[in-house]
Amino acid sequence: MTTKRPMRVLVWGENHHEKHDELTRQIYPDTMHGTIAAGLRDLLGADAVVETAALDDPEQGLGEEQLAETDVLLWWGHLRHDAVDDDAVERVQRHVLGGMGFIPLHSAHFSKVFIRLMGTTCSLRWRQGVDRELVWTVSPTHPIAQGVPHPLIIPAQEMYGEYFDVPAPDELVFVSSFSGGEVFRSGLTFSRGHGRIFYFSPGDQDYPVYHQPEIKRVLANAVAWAFQDRPRTQPRITMHREGEFDTPREWDGTLQ
Amino acid sequence: MTTKRPMRVLVWGENHHEKHDELTRQIYPDTMHGTIAAGLRDLLGADAVVETAALDDPEQGLGEEQLAETDVLLWWGHLRHDAVDDDAVERVQRHVLGGMGFIPLHSAHFSKVFIRLMGTTCSLRWRQGVDRELVWTVSPTHPIAQGVPHPLIIPAQEMYGEYFDVPAPDELVFVSSFSGGEVFRSGLTFSRGHGRIFYFSPGDQDYPVYHQPEIKRVLANAVAWAFQDRPRTQPRITMHREGEFDTPREWDGTLQ
Amino acid sequence: MTTKRPMRVLVWGENHHEKHDELTRQIYPDTMHGTIAAGLRDLLGADAVVETAALDDPEQGLGEEQLAETDVLLWWGHLRHDAVDDDAVERVQRHVLGGMGFIPLHSAHFSKVFIRLMGTTCSLRWRQGVDRELVWTVSPTHPIAQGVPHPLIIPAQEMYGEYFDVPAPDELVFVSSFSGGEVFRSGLTFSRGHGRIFYFSPGDQDYPVYHQPEIKRVLANAVAWAFQDRPRTQPRITMHREGEFDTPREWDGTLQ
Amino acid sequence: MTTKRPMRVLVWGENHHEKHDELTRQIYPDTMHGTIAAGLRDLLGADAVVETAALDDPEQGLGEEQLAETDVLLWWGHLRHDAVDDDAVERVQRHVLGGMGFIPLHSAHFSKVFIRLMGTTCSLRWRQGVDRELVWTVSPTHPIAQGVPHPLIIPAQEMYGEYFDVPAPDELVFVSSFSGGEVFRSGLTFSRGHGRIFYFSPGDQDYPVYHQPEIKRVLANAVAWAFQDRPRTQPRITMHREGEFDTPREWDGTLQ
Repeated sequence: MTTKRPMRVLVWGENHHEKHDELTRQIYPDTMHGTIAAGLRDLLGADAVVETAALDDPEQGLGEEQLAETDVLLWWGHLRHDAVDDDAVERVQRHVLGGMGFIPLHSAHFSKVFIRLMGTTCSLRWRQGVDRELVWTVSPTHPIAQGVPHPLIIPAQEMYGEYFDVPAPDELVFVSSFSGGEVFRSGLTFSRGHGRIFYFSPGDQDYPVYHQPEIKRVLANAVAWAFQDRPRTQPRITMHREGEFDTPREWDGTLQ
Repeated sequence: MTTKRPMRVLVWGENHHEKHDELTRQIYPDTMHGTIAAGLRDLLGADAVVETAALDDPEQGLGEEQLAETDVLLWWGHLRHDAVDDDAVERVQRHVLGGMGFIPLHSAHFSKVFIRLMGTTCSLRWRQGVDRELVWTVSPTHPIAQGVPHPLIIPAQEMYGEYFDVPAPDELVFVSSFSGGEVFRSGLTFSRGHGRIFYFSPGDQDYPVYHQPEIKRVLANAVAWAFQDRPRTQPRITMHREGEFDTPREWDGTLQ
Repeated sequence: MTTKRPMRVLVWGENHHEKHDELTRQIYPDTMHGTIAAGLRDLLGADAVVETAALDDPEQGLGEEQLAETDVLLWWGHLRHDAVDDDAVERVQRHVLGGMGFIPLHSAHFSKVFIRLMGTTCSLRWRQGVDRELVWTVSPTHPIAQGVPHPLIIPAQEMYGEYFDVPAPDELVFVSSFSGGEVFRSGLTFSRGHGRIFYFSPGDQDYPVYHQPEIKRVLANAVAWAFQDRPRTQPRITMHREGEFDTPREWDGTLQ
Repeated sequence: MTTKRPMRVLVWGENHHEKHDELTRQIYPDTMHGTIAAGLRDLLGADAVVETAALDDPEQGLGEEQLAETDVLLWWGHLRHDAVDDDAVERVQRHVLGGMGFIPLHSAHFSKVFIRLMGTTCSLRWRQGVDRELVWTVSPTHPIAQGVPHPLIIPAQEMYGEYFDVPAPDELVFVSSFSGGEVFRSGLTFSRGHGRIFYFSPGDQDYPVYHQPEIKRVLANAVAWAFQDRPRTQPRITMHREGEFDTPREWDGTLQ
C-alpha cells in the first residue's frame, strides 16, 4: 500500500554481438539489453521506469547526468570491456558507492567497474560448451529468490565454475551446477559504500537465457532489492569534535 | 617451531552399521570411527592423541570426564540419533559452547546435538543412489582447504542436496556437485559460544569415502582448525559496575 | 505502487512489570507491548494490521491459530521467561522456521525461543545503571537503517555489553556504545529456516525508549524487512530420484 | 610439534613522522616500523624472520624480489600515501591476491593498496583528541583474539569512528569504543584472491600504542593467522574441457 516513486532503471549493453554475430541477432533481435529491459517492464510495471543505454551512445551511455538519474544499473558486457573509458568506470564506481544499485550480468564479471569494486581478479573457470545449468537457491528467505523455482533449469549454457575470485559475498543466494560437474556461486550480493550490488551469472549471447520467465523474475527481484530511495552521497571522511555527532567538519585535505 | 601440547581428539561413532550391515563391515572392518581415527593418527602424528568412543560404551562414550579431556570431537551417527541420551546431548553442547571443537560428519546433520547447536531443522534433499560427488573449494585461503585437490573427486556417494536448512555459515569452504545435478554446501564452519564447528558432508556407511587420502587430509586440517588451547569455559552472564571491566560480579539468578 | 496485502503483526508482551512496577506503569501506562504496537500503527498505517498478545492471555497468547495468522512477531519478555510453556516455545520456533518473522527485543535475548533458535547461551555483560547509549549504523545500505539517525541517541539505558554469545549474524546493522565504555552489537539479523529474525537490544521497562520516534522507526523498518508473503512451510527432508527435482517423495521416517 | 619453516615477515613504514616530528621520535626512537618489528621478534621468536622496509628505501622497499620473499606484510603509512608509486601498489596488490598476508595498520586505511583491495572509499569519522580506546573482542574463538584482554585498554588514542566505509568483513574480531562515545570496527579480516588481510586500527604516531604488550600480542597473532605456506599464485581464468578438471588450458587472451 506504500506508494513509492517509480524506480529508475538503466540497462546498459555493450551491443557488440548484436551487431556482429548472426546467432545473437537471431536470439535477441531487440538486442540483449533491450530484451532484459522489456522483461523488467513486464514484471515491474508501474513500479519502474526502465531505459536502455549502450557503449556506442554518447558518453558511452554513462554520462554524469544519466547516472545521477539512475537508481539501479544493470550491465551486460563481454568483448569490449577495454573499450569502456576509465572516466566512465570512475563515474559508475562513484555512483555505486554513492547509493546506485548495480547488477553486473554474466561476462560482466570481467568488466572494469566490477573488478574495481571487488578488488580481486574476478577470474573463474569456464567452458564454451553446451552444459545444462541448474540454479539452486541456498537463501530461501532472500527477496531475490522469491518466486524462483528450485532449481531453476537452464537447458543450455556456457559453463562458469569455481574458483570464482571475488570476495566472500554478503549473502550467497544461488549456487549453480553444470552437467559437466562444475559448480558456481551464481547469485551473490555485496554492499559497497552506500550501494547494493547483485552479481548474477546466467545469461550469454549464444543462448536464449534472458527470454526465460524465471530469469526475468530473478532480475526484477534484484532490481527491487538493489533499489534505495536515498540521495546520492558517497561516503567521505569527516572530522568530529567531541559531542558533535551531527555536525561533521569538512576534512581539509590533510590528515593531521 | 612452536611446540604446543598434543591435541586430544575423540572420534565418536554410532557403531550400528558396523554390527548389522555386511557391506559396512567389508568396507570398514576396523569400524568407521576406527578408520577415521587411524587416518588422523597418520596425518597428525605427534601433534595429536586420537581416541575413539562409541554409543555402546559406558555413558555412551560421552561422559563428563571424557569430554573435559577432549579438545576436538568428531561425530558419526545415522540410524541411532534418538538413542543418544538427552543428558549426553546437553553435555556435548555445553562443552562445545565452552570451547571444544566439534566436527559432525555426513548423516550427523540429523544428530540431536547438531540440531540443537544450529537451531534449525538441519533437513536436506537426498538420494540413496550412486552419484559421483565433486567437492569444490570456494575458500582457497581457508586452512581446512590446504592441500586438498580442486575438485576432490568421490567416485560414488549418497546424494545430499540443497536446501540444507542450517544457518548461513561463518565460512563456506566447500561446495559439492552430484552427477544427478544437485549441489550441496558440503564444508561449513560455525562458531558457537567458545567452540568451533566444522560440518563436512562426504562419508557414508556404504562407500569407502573415509579411506580416501584427500578426505583424511580434510579431516586432519579440520581438527587442527577446530582446536583451541583454552580452558573450557562456557559464556555466562556477568554484571559489571562502571569501570569494573575485569571483575565480573556473578549473576545471582535474577535479572534486576 | 505495488499493492500488497497488509502485514499481520503481533506484539507479544510478558506484561509483568506493567502490573507490578510503579515506574513501568508511569512510563508505559498503555503497557510496553501496547506502546510498541501503537508506534507500529503510526508508522506502517494501512501497510499493517497490528495486534497485541500477552503471557496471561489464553494459550499464553501464542496459540497455533494465532501464530498461523501472524506474519511478524515482536517479543518483549524479561522476568517470566520460564513461565512460557515449552509447547508454546516449540510452536513459535516452528512458525519462525516456517517463515514467520521474529523480532526479539532487549531482555528477550534470554527468552527460551531465542536461545533455542540461536543454539548458544545468549548471555552478555550488563549493568543496571544510567548509561547513555549511542546506536551507530554500520550497514548504511540495510533497509532497517533507513531514516535512522547516526548515531541514534538514547539518553538513559541499561548497559548491555560484549561478549554477546550469539552466532555471528548474517548482517550487523547497529553497534552501540555506552557511556561506561562498553560496546554491544545491538541490531543483528539472522535467517533460520524460512524465517527472518532481527534482534534489537534497546528498550527496557525502566526507560521510555519505546516512546522515541527513532526507535519506532527502527521497529517499523524491521517489521517490513522481516515480512515475507509466503505460505508457512517448515523445511523438511525430501527424497528425490535422479531427475525428479520437483517431485519430492516424502521421507517415510527412516533414513536408508 | 609440527615444524614449519619460519614465516618471512616484512614491516613497512612510511618513516615520515619519525624524521619530522619530535613527538614521534621521542615515542618511537627506533622508528614505528622498527618498534613493531621488535615486538614481533619478541613474541614469534624462531617462528619468524622479521625485516623492515621504508618508503625511502630503493624501490620504496617494495621491489618484486622483496615481495616474492615475503609471507606477511605489515604496513604503516599516514601522510605519504600519494608518494607510493602506482607500480609498487600494483605489485603489492598482485602479491596479496597471490597469497601474501597483508596487515594494514591504523591510518593505512587510506593507503592506495588497501583502497584498491577494498573497492570502497575506506573513509571514516575521526578526531585528533585524547580519547581512551577500549578494544572489545566479539569473536572469542578467533586465533587473533587468543590471549588478548577483554577489553584491551589504550589510555590515549586518536578517535576513529563509524561509518567505516569498507566491505562487510569476513570476520569481525574487535570493536572499539572511544570515551567520546564513538564506536569502530577495529579488527577486521578479509580474504582477497589467495591472500588473507587483517586491518587493525589502533596505533598512531602520537601515542605509544605499539609499545603495549597486548597490542604486540594482537600483531603477532595476526601474522600467524595471515601466514600461508603456499606458492605465490594469483588466481587466473582457466578454460576446461568437459572432464578435464585438473588440466586447465591457458586462456589465450580472448573470451570466445
